[in-house]
Amino acid sequence: MSPKEGSGLSRRAWLATTSGVIAAGLLKTQADAVSLVAQEAPVVGQDHTKVPGRFVSELGQRAPGERPRRLPRTQALSSSSRTPLQDLHGIITPADLHFERHHGGVPNIIAEEHELMVHGMVDRPTVFRMADLKRYPQSSRIHFVECSGNGGGVYNRDRMPTDVTPQALDGLLSTSEWSGVMLSTILREVGVRPGASWLLAEGGDSAVMSRSVPLDKAMDDAMLAYGQNGEAIRPEQGYPVRLLLPGWEGNANVKWLRRIEVTDQPTMTREETSRYTDPLKDGTARQFSFVMDAKSIITFPSYPYVLPEPGWWEIKGLAWTGRGRITRVDISTDRGVTWVPAELQVPILSKATVRFRHLWEWDGRETVILSRAVDETGYVQPTIQQLWEARGERTNYHQNHQRAWRIGADGVVTFGLGELL
Amino acid sequence: MSPKEGSGLSRRAWLATTSGVIAAGLLKTQADAVSLVAQEAPVVGQDHTKVPGRFVSELGQRAPGERPRRLPRTQALSSSSRTPLQDLHGIITPADLHFERHHGGVPNIIAEEHELMVHGMVDRPTVFRMADLKRYPQSSRIHFVECSGNGGGVYNRDRMPTDVTPQALDGLLSTSEWSGVMLSTILREVGVRPGASWLLAEGGDSAVMSRSVPLDKAMDDAMLAYGQNGEAIRPEQGYPVRLLLPGWEGNANVKWLRRIEVTDQPTMTREETSRYTDPLKDGTARQFSFVMDAKSIITFPSYPYVLPEPGWWEIKGLAWTGRGRITRVDISTDRGVTWVPAELQVPILSKATVRFRHLWEWDGRETVILSRAVDETGYVQPTIQQLWEARGERTNYHQNHQRAWRIGADGVVTFGLGELL
Repeated sequence: MSPKEGSGLSRRAWLATTSGVIAAGLLKTQADAVSLVAQEAPVVGQDHTKVPGRFVSELGQRAPGERPRRLPRTQALSSSSRTPLQDLHGIITPADLHFERHHGGVPNIIAEEHELMVHGMVDRPTVFRMADLKRYPQSSRIHFVECSGNGGGVYNRDRMPTDVTPQALDGLLSTSEWSGVMLSTILREVGVRPGASWLLAEGGDSAVMSRSVPLDKAMDDAMLAYGQNGEAIRPEQGYPVRLLLPGWEGNANVKWLRRIEVTDQPTMTREETSRYTDPLKDGTARQFSFVMDAKSIITFPSYPYVLPEPGWWEIKGLAWTGRGRITRVDISTDRGVTWVPAELQVPILSKATVRFRHLWEWDGRETVILSRAVDETGYVQPTIQQLWEARGERTNYHQNHQRAWRIGADGVVTFGLGELL
Repeated sequence: MSPKEGSGLSRRAWLATTSGVIAAGLLKTQADAVSLVAQEAPVVGQDHTKVPGRFVSELGQRAPGERPRRLPRTQALSSSSRTPLQDLHGIITPADLHFERHHGGVPNIIAEEHELMVHGMVDRPTVFRMADLKRYPQSSRIHFVECSGNGGGVYNRDRMPTDVTPQALDGLLSTSEWSGVMLSTILREVGVRPGASWLLAEGGDSAVMSRSVPLDKAMDDAMLAYGQNGEAIRPEQGYPVRLLLPGWEGNANVKWLRRIEVTDQPTMTREETSRYTDPLKDGTARQFSFVMDAKSIITFPSYPYVLPEPGWWEIKGLAWTGRGRITRVDISTDRGVTWVPAELQVPILSKATVRFRHLWEWDGRETVILSRAVDETGYVQPTIQQLWEARGERTNYHQNHQRAWRIGADGVVTFGLGELL
């Protein structure tokens, strides 16, 4: 189109198009026409070439037949909601479907009032307003964020479910293009003092969610993120600014960030002592297990899909690793006996989800399908037996073992890990 | 978090957090609590650590203070709305802010009813339903879509505006992660006959928008796209399926695609004869000018921003080319006399927008700033004089000449191309 098109032309086009369906004599003004042509609900069997469509709008909406939804857990201050992985394509998660996990509810912060204090072992303690943060050089990166408790529902051998969707199982995982200022820029601005080695990140929510972060990570790829998929970060993801620690467990990516204190040791907050540590089988506990190890999940076919017939089906899924890039995803369609590499969608980005796909001819017989991710460090997504062996059966976090789906002879798909134990 | 957390813990946490603000005796049930703690509007001066936040939800919403909006033109069947480029970060456009351009309004199609017929010079004419299309191997790519009439408001030397925003000027440009099946897959399935060289793509809207596309492009990187930024493509972008021709003018990316006819010549539809051709200064016209040439625009500082003070400011913008990858964006802060390369955000994707940034120390004096994109073919974004020279002053499309912003000594930013004529 061209801005030089006059409204006269548009009106002519409109009249030409609508003359077949609406008596032109009924139309007194263009404003009248709006209410006549706007279609709010789809009509079964309609020939859309014969019916004028809706006019342009300030904000788009989903098609009425498309209703992807997060899956909220309990309505409580400490709760979560999960991304509908089985409904999504590609790697980007729409912002309104990004998973939630908060410990004190979502605060309703006014960006212009928000302050971030950076202090402790620094030369120039400083309070930053959002306008200050936005004036620093900006970066944008596509990264996943995953809660370290993701997938915990399929780790206990005595309670292995079959009726669990990718959303219910691993929906505490989402991927966005994040924009903001690198934390290293801000730390250089305030001047980190010799001897500093950690920082405390504190949220401005009613839980005052706080975590300790090694200074090395802060100076490497940590970001103060105020943008998400092009727009301002959403309230549930930390509006107006969150700490983004690419590849590290979600909990440490402190939202509604209001304070950073540079220290020479971890602060040992509640969220890293009473929680977010991993009990091991020798009775000790693994603490500061920040990195999310390589993981993958097949999102199609998965519960509750049903394959209507044997034949060619494309197995699709997501793989990701907090250690950098995914280099390979293997697929097994015979209960883990043999494996073949899936195709990986390029570009493969560091610390981002990767879409994998594998064309599979299903012979109609019952089987179990699995995926297994490998990352650039050579790390291979473990079996559940390997994870039990390494960490025991009592850990609540970092349960990145291989997921499996059972395909019944009737095409019914259910969670299949129990079949392999 | 862990799914093993019982609701008992959440309830304890909730009571602990709310005891300071709500008399516990008032709470009969958790359901009562929901209405008490939910905050629907932000409160000035509130200490968010003292007030329980909102609970989890099925769909997120923007912060009340963030209201990015498309800019609709006339309310008519043939109209457009524009993406707020000056408000966005990174490269992804949120789906509800993707620009619109339609010639017969937005049809309200029921996906399960939609049919795509592929016929003409093929061995096996076939009608595809959406479930059929989704069964073929899927691809996902990040690409821009731009209307070839984008930016036309700043081409006429006698009517050069100063009060135009990036949105009003170049907002018929958006970038998404598109998912779908490659058109080449479908064409191989139906078997293209020898001698075929074009196809007709026909939309199912009330304008029956139709364009001819060379078979080479169809077999190269054309996609039948049903996914956009993870979710189902939005109605305004062609739900349930559109033709995506990466790097080619938006109009040819036919939406609500219902028919593809393989032919041995262009069909010469209304939209490629009466429109979407470029009159040249020798009286001839350039037809089938599909490719969007390299272009860039500074989105900050831009109208209507005001720089409050001299000093360091980061110039930010977007660059893109339909010919592949952007290799360089030059910035001039002295009316086009000298140029320096900006930093380009990696990864630089083919036929996708690229975010460029350049840190600039403004000395407080009046000036004009410009950007100039270069792509991997060596093509350099032209000046308006070069474009006038090549194509005359009457063309309505492909006006990709350099954009400029005037910075006044008072910090007021206005569109500045007129300053350079």
